[in-house]
Amino acid sequence: MTIIFYDIPSDRVGAWSPNTWKTRFCLNFKGIPYKTEWVEYPDIAELSKKLGFKPTGKTPWDGTDYYSLPAIHDPSTGAYISDSWEIAEYLEKQYPDTPTLFPNGTKGLQAAIADGYHVALGSLWAFILPATNEILNSKSQGYFSRTRQLAFKVEKIQDLVPKGEKAVEEWGKLQSSLDKVDRWYAKTDDKGPFILGETISWSDLNIASWTIWMKVTFGEDSKEWKDIASWQGGRWSKLLVDLEKYSAKKD
Amino acid sequence: MTIIFYDIPSDRVGAWSPNTWKTRFCLNFKGIPYKTEWVEYPDIAELSKKLGFKPTGKTPWDGTDYYSLPAIHDPSTGAYISDSWEIAEYLEKQYPDTPTLFPNGTKGLQAAIADGYHVALGSLWAFILPATNEILNSKSQGYFSRTRQLAFKVEKIQDLVPKGEKAVEEWGKLQSSLDKVDRWYAKTDDKGPFILGETISWSDLNIASWTIWMKVTFGEDSKEWKDIASWQGGRWSKLLVDLEKYSAKKD
Repeated sequence: MTIIFYDIPSDRVGAWSPNTWKTRFCLNFKGIPYKTEWVEYPDIAELSKKLGFKPTGKTPWDGTDYYSLPAIHDPSTGAYISDSWEIAEYLEKQYPDTPTLFPNGTKGLQAAIADGYHVALGSLWAFILPATNEILNSKSQGYFSRTRQLAFKVEKIQDLVPKGEKAVEEWGKLQSSLDKVDRWYAKTDDKGPFILGETISWSDLNIASWTIWMKVTFGEDSKEWKDIASWQGGRWSKLLVDLEKYSAKKD
Repeated sequence: MTIIFYDIPSDRVGAWSPNTWKTRFCLNFKGIPYKTEWVEYPDIAELSKKLGFKPTGKTPWDGTDYYSLPAIHDPSTGAYISDSWEIAEYLEKQYPDTPTLFPNGTKGLQAAIADGYHVALGSLWAFILPATNEILNSKSQGYFSRTRQLAFKVEKIQDLVPKGEKAVEEWGKLQSSLDKVDRWYAKTDDKGPFILGETISWSDLNIASWTIWMKVTFGEDSKEWKDIASWQGGRWSKLLVDLEKYSAKKD
């Protein structure tokens, strides 16, 4: 049976969300059939409550339940699951004959690198959130900018973008924190291209998901993406090429 | 042939240094014969230059070469190697028939968790560096306190210790950042006790090394150690028990 995969649309660039890309990659990598249902931001909470998806956190502005995508419904089991990590765990358990995301007991180590990578992206948000608002469909833009303004305590989402010297400094910080991630990859004996060498795992799909976000949001011809694609010997743009086989956007 | 392993002494508590413990654990785990040479802090740089150990970094106070232990000399190859990670890599390559520290291509993931764990210890230094000075032999105390005062820009090493509410807050931060490390461990499918499940690897020896430092420096009967030993369901004190077999201090 076909899994229903809930994602956030962008008519301008197509599938873009880093968190939903994690699930899309997992489904593609495992070869599990799915169909995408596109949900605009203002409809996510209502849909989640209706279908019974668990909240994935609390809002930073008023501490109430926060609902987000990805989420999947698996008609073969009746399961409704939200949160990209929980979905990965579900797919591992439910479809044990498909390629594994966590080979050789590496789940704990992969959780660790995911946290470390997320910390490394610390300087990115200020640049990419305003750009993300621009690629969303108009129905989602108001919701996205309002909630991010609340979360980051700014008047306008565009105010997040650093200016002048501060911009150079913050962008440089992103590059040097990605240096650290690059050194982790470089440590692997046979030099990759994946964090486990020739074996693809959750970590690579996770990092590729964030990287796709940067690519489609800033745009392939942007200075930002050209920088990122050239950093660390082109490791991140090459990672997308090496995972191209699993990057299909099935509707 | 027997490897010469250079460590820093403490007549009061015995082997204590987290960085040298990493190497001691590796040697014990691999079952490679070694003999410890004890070197007081003021003698490390001179010895390193004489024997040809590479500096392991730059001093934060004047940017000159910094020499540190562990270091090993392997008479069977003539190699002189410093830095616990480089020693681990050397032992892996030179003694491929001994138990591996980085199974299944996990070297990159293990480098990532090591960085993440180190970041998690951020609040520890202020508490443990002054206590460390107390357990050192008198020959090393002056050097240790002087260099740490320069590095942390304080008049006296004791000034580092937070007082009153600040102490409670910083100690609480340590506990909650170790929660994060605990969650990584908890993710591993069969629930450990090691980060790869039943398989010991560098990551466990690394974390155990830092934990031994806490235990012997604060003292088994201290409030500090009792706290740490009880945190996260006793995971860290249990880790030491699970690795006891590899904790022998050979002189």
